[in-house]
Formats: sequence, C-alpha cells, structure tokens
Amino acid sequence: MIHADLIVRDAAEAATLAAGPVPRVGPAMNDLARVPDAAIAVDGGLVVWVGPERRVSREVRLRAGGRALDAAGGTVVPGFVDAHTHVLFAGDRAAEIPLRVRGASYREIARRGGGLYSTVRATRAAGSRELLRTAADRLRRMAANGATVVEVKSGYALDHVGELRLLRLIPRLARATGLRLVPTFLGAHAVPPEFEGRADDYIDSLVRRTLPAVARGGLARFCDVFCEPGFFSVAQSERLLRAAARLGLGVKVHADEFVLSGGARLAARLGARSADHLLATPAADRGRLARAGVSAVLLPMTAFASTAARRSPGREMVDAGVPVALGTDCSPNTWVESMPLVLAGAVHGGRMTPAEALTAATVNAAHASGVGDAGTIEVGRPADLAVLPIRSADLVGYRFDVRPTLVLRQGKPVFTP
Amino acid sequence: MIHADLIVRDAAEAATLAAGPVPRVGPAMNDLARVPDAAIAVDGGLVVWVGPERRVSREVRLRAGGRALDAAGGTVVPGFVDAHTHVLFAGDRAAEIPLRVRGASYREIARRGGGLYSTVRATRAAGSRELLRTAADRLRRMAANGATVVEVKSGYALDHVGELRLLRLIPRLARATGLRLVPTFLGAHAVPPEFEGRADDYIDSLVRRTLPAVARGGLARFCDVFCEPGFFSVAQSERLLRAAARLGLGVKVHADEFVLSGGARLAARLGARSADHLLATPAADRGRLARAGVSAVLLPMTAFASTAARRSPGREMVDAGVPVALGTDCSPNTWVESMPLVLAGAVHGGRMTPAEALTAATVNAAHASGVGDAGTIEVGRPADLAVLPIRSADLVGYRFDVRPTLVLRQGKPVFTP
Repeated sequence: MIHADLIVRDAAEAATLAAGPVPRVGPAMNDLARVPDAAIAVDGGLVVWVGPERRVSREVRLRAGGRALDAAGGTVVPGFVDAHTHVLFAGDRAAEIPLRVRGASYREIARRGGGLYSTVRATRAAGSRELLRTAADRLRRMAANGATVVEVKSGYALDHVGELRLLRLIPRLARATGLRLVPTFLGAHAVPPEFEGRADDYIDSLVRRTLPAVARGGLARFCDVFCEPGFFSVAQSERLLRAAARLGLGVKVHADEFVLSGGARLAARLGARSADHLLATPAADRGRLARAGVSAVLLPMTAFASTAARRSPGREMVDAGVPVALGTDCSPNTWVESMPLVLAGAVHGGRMTPAEALTAATVNAAHASGVGDAGTIEVGRPADLAVLPIRSADLVGYRFDVRPTLVLRQGKPVFTP
Repeated sequence: MIHADLIVRDAAEAATLAAGPVPRVGPAMNDLARVPDAAIAVDGGLVVWVGPERRVSREVRLRAGGRALDAAGGTVVPGFVDAHTHVLFAGDRAAEIPLRVRGASYREIARRGGGLYSTVRATRAAGSRELLRTAADRLRRMAANGATVVEVKSGYALDHVGELRLLRLIPRLARATGLRLVPTFLGAHAVPPEFEGRADDYIDSLVRRTLPAVARGGLARFCDVFCEPGFFSVAQSERLLRAAARLGLGVKVHADEFVLSGGARLAARLGARSADHLLATPAADRGRLARAGVSAVLLPMTAFASTAARRSPGREMVDAGVPVALGTDCSPNTWVESMPLVLAGAVHGGRMTPAEALTAATVNAAHASGVGDAGTIEVGRPADLAVLPIRSADLVGYRFDVRPTLVLRQGKPVFTP
C-alpha cells in the first residue's frame, strides 16, 4: 500500500509525458504516454503513484488529514514550463501602441529611444521592492494559468550593477511565488544608450566584468544574446557566448526574429541549448539546428503581436526534426501570461498538433531551460501538474481561452492572488 | 440626493462611451468620454449617476441593504457587446486539427464532410437540453470575460425544423444566463448535405418556408448568409436577404472571408446592418461600406486561427471611415470566449488603437447588433459594465490575457459558474 497526502481523482485522462528520450523530436512529439480515467497520488510534494482511477482505492491510502481533489473529468498534464520570459521589468509600453498600430516596427521604436529603451529607463529607476512585487504578480498569474517552471531573463538594466541586481532578485521571486525559476543572463538584450555605436565595447565590458561576476555568484544558468541587425552581430554574439561557455554557463540565442540574422546558424555551431524566436530561419538552418540538437524555443504569440502577418514555424521545425519548446515571451512588448494561450497559438498559428504543442510546453521546454526533472508526471518527481477542463489532451490548444481548474506545484495547490 | 442600491467606487478611470453619434467612425472612434477617478451608481439595474469619486458621497446615498463594490484602481468600461457568435452547437472539432495543421483549408475540410458538416450532424442529433447546457456554459464564461450582450446566430441545423429549434432556444438561453442575446437567422450558413449541388433550391426553401416562419414567430432580429465561393453566390445571397428585408428582418453578410466574394459589395448595395469577416475586402469595397454606413464586424482571432498568416483589417477599415465592430466568432472552428482576447487581437493583429478597439467592442458592436441602448455607461440605461484591472483605457488590448475583476449585467454581478 502506498501512502499519499493528496490524491487527484477522476481525470478523464492524464498525459504524463513520461516515456521516451529527452528532448523529443519528430513523430515522438506525438507520444504523450496517456493514462485514461486516471488518478495521481502525491506525498511530500512528490508523485508517488499514477494509474487508472479504478485501482487507486486498492493501491493508495490517503494519510490522516490528507485530501482528495476532484479533476471532474478534466485532463491532467504536467505543469507547464515557460521556456522564455522577460518578467523582470518596470512600467509598461501602452504609450507606444499608437505608433505600432501605424506600422512602426520594434526596431524603429527602439531606435527612437522608445520600446525596449523606455523599459530600461523605468527598470533602472525602479526600486527592488517594486520590481519584486510586479514580477511576482505576473508569475502568480502565470502559475494560475498552469506554469510551474519559468525561465526568467535579465536584460532591462543593461549595466553592470543593474543586471546583477535583476539576477539576484530571481531567487527571491522563486521564494515569494513558490515557482521554480531558471535565471538567464541577457545583459546583451540591446546596446545600452551609454554605448551607442560602440556595441563591441559593450560586449567587451560584459566579457571582462559582468559575465565573470555572474558566473562567480552563480547568478545564472544560461547566457543569452539578442543576435539581430541593430542589436548584436553574429561575431559579437559568438564572442560573448564563447566567454560564457568557458565560465560554465549554458548558452542561448535570440535568433532570426525580424530578419535572417545568422543567429540560428550560430546556435548550431556553438551547440547552444536553444535558439529562440526563429521567425526568419530558412530550411537549411532548421536542418543545422536539428543536427546539432539545439532546441527551438518558439513564441507564437510574439509572432502574432508583432503584426499578425507572420506564423510561428512550429510545423516546419517539428518536421525538420528540431526539438521544439514553447514560451510566452512575457515582456512589456508581448504581455502574455498564459501558457494555454501560447498552446493555442502553437496549434492555430504554428500548425503544431495538440500533442506536439503539449510536448513542447512541458518535457521539451524543461530540456530547453535545463530543468531535467520537470515537464513530466512521474513517480519520484515533483508533483507539478495542471488539470485542464477538457476531456482529452487531443483538445489542448483547440479552445483559445482555457484555464486550469487546478494547478499543483510540488503537490501544493496554486491559487490566483 | 440620488438613491442607489449599488455603487462601484475607486475606479482610476471610467470610459463611458457616452458622447457622439452612433455608430462612431474615423477619429471619433478614439473619443471614449473618459471620467478620471470615477464612481458609478446603479439603482434598479439602471445607471443613475456617473462622476468623479470625490463627489459620490455628497451626491449619492446608498439605500439600506445596498452595497459598494471596489473597482480597486481599475478601469470601468461598458459591458462588451459580442457582435458575432455561433455558440449554439454540439460536439467539438478536435478531430480535424491534425488535418488543419497539415494545411487543409476550412473549405477543403468542409468539402470532405468534416468541419461545419460534422458540427451539423452533431447539432441535429443533440437534444435541446444538451444544446442549452453547453451554450449556457459558453455564454457564462463569456459573461465572466465581460460580455453582457451577445449576438447568437443559428446555422448548425440547416433544415427547417432544426433551424427554428435553434432560434427558439435563444430566449431560453437569455433567461438562463441573464445575458441580453440578439438572435440572428443563419439558415444559409452552408448548403446542407441534402441539397448538395442544389444551392438555389435550398435558398428557395428558405425564402418560401423557413424565413416566413422565422418572421412570423419573431424568432430573429437579423438574417445572415455565408456569401463565399463553395457556399452561396452573390445572387443567391441577395435573393435571400431581399426576402428577409421584405419580412422586416435586418440583414447581414458573412463576406470576403477567404477570397473576394463580393459579399461586402452586396452588403453596401443592400444597406445591410453589417458585413462580417472581410479579410479579403479590397480598398474600393471598404469605401462602399463606408458610404453605405454598413458596419464592419471584424473577428481578429478568426484571422489568426485560420493560419495566422492574415491580419484583421481593423486599421484599414477605421481609416476608410467604416464603422468597425468586433466579435469573438465563438464557434467550433474558432473557439474564443473572451472579448478581452479579441481586443488584444484587434490591437496587435488589427492595428487598431486601444480606444478604437474599445469603441468597436461596445457602442459600435451594439449598433451592429441592433441594440440601441447598450454599449455605453449612461444615466437611465442598463448598468452593464466591466471593471478591468488596468489603470487606463489606454491599456485595453495591450496585455493579452486580462480578465475583468467585476462584471455587472443590469446592475447584478456576473460570476463564473
């Protein structure tokens, strides 16, 4: 008899994602390891039993004071892993919407000192308490939408002290929200105003001063860079990422978002953990990512937000054999806090099957963010899961605005604030 | 002193939409008639006072047993009017997603007996109790997302008895949900399987038998038609709509969704109340709509869901002087229940300003659905309103997944089921 302090009962289905190599590629992304009519037992924050509802009473005993939660015919999935966010920022960008609707691009707005630079000004000026409070609010809403692991990138300070401050806030945010957060250093999010026209000098300062401090303090798991014309060149990106790798950090690239920047090719050459965005990546470079085993972190709502005239290349990346992961890209530019909405974007916009999208949002996103034991529902692993009010995982991403009816992080229910 | 049984207090702003001609066109769509630091008083389900918070205590007295609700620094807007839905259906279409992600079009899937026709089979087979229950669930979630008026189209029975049954369910749905519903007869949603290759005969049967029964029973406010190659031609659409107009129904057209069908031009020629979808409408026909005063009902999430490669033409329609309205298009093809998500789609995808989008989702949608006294917050009108957790209407549609913190329909709070 197995003892449990919590049992989730009466799910129409559990998609455990518990079988197969990590990350999943190609047709394997459609294998969800489903358990029909499922129940899941949790003890001490870990999954202790997964199986058919009809067997749970015989095989699992609820401890005194333990409780059973009703999945009410919904579908249990692993807690979502959001593999790409920029939630640490101050202010908002409502003021630039009138420019955007008239067709000004992200790069044009940034070049005029708006966009990203207005967020940098607001973030530098903000107190740590305000940054913590607003980011925690966002993360709690993300958790209510089913996310249990979130990769958080720095990048709105763009100076030595400010970037370190942002990274140091991440463990505090994790404690405040109960979420598992993966810190990524994105000091090279843009060339700071102080270094205008001197991107090489800024890379120099990151390599000589900031990166070593990040590594020394254990402040980040990954180093990321915005490799795009007007931001950082392939050569500048490569220099930064090689330095990061030497210091033991994993590497990631914001690649080919607006135009073919060569960022995906660079990610493949460096064996990066992930290349992110990839809206302008050609077929040859999809092949390079696949052969190098670099995860493609796709952000379908960003493709939509930028103009709605671009599709996230989910279908193409899956068919090319690239391990695809998903993220919200939550930022003041694309303020999305719902992984279920991202799943709908991946299915409707990215033309991924519901199973591919779910794989991308769980086990593959966990791999892309370097969190080995997340993204599945398996005995011995943290009980991070969401119950969706749909009768089967075949409906993931079909309805646009599905909200979980229950989210557990380490076996504890997550509630909206 | 004004007496109230409910006061909504401490809003950072109220956008009342209470000034100007109806519908609003062009630059007038940016005039929201804002009240900063607002409070709103309600009595007997009607708005009795709107003004600055600092004056409410002096000018309004709460009745014994009345209550004050805290808008907590949010923004009060009129309850959303969803000007285009197909919520009366059975089943779902998850099974066709694998076809869609491989690129099969809506028309191809329909031609193979899937898509719309699979929903017709399910709807014909469903009991009225099931149809009521599932549609009411959808409408309640829509209400929780801020909608207080919803246009509901028939069209998934495609036979005389079944279409009349669907229309007769609408008043029952209104009673069950407390929402104000506008019934629209869409018997010409597609050529039914029994009439394959004989669209003219089907139009004939609608004109001779079903339309007169609809009119006689007062079952619908509007008659709508799917004017698109493979569905109904301009000539067939015109014949149906002229017959409907003679019977006193308003007329609407599903126009130019996939290709230039001539539907918008027809709507202009007939002086229709609205032309809906309009993804393939050329500039010349936008001008025709503007001159004829035909509302464009745009459905930005449908543009996204179809392939994500098309933009909803919000900017172009506003600039052409067409009165723009918005809807979810909630259906088994585009299962969207959230007007705030549609507002985000209108801003990010349709390039409308937040103010234009809000105007389109309230006062202009009320006009498009023929509900004269909805879509504004004004003394003497029903107290239908939503409080959004944003500091100003300038942020409408900016974040993708905003949920109202309070929704009132006729002064009564609406809760999720």
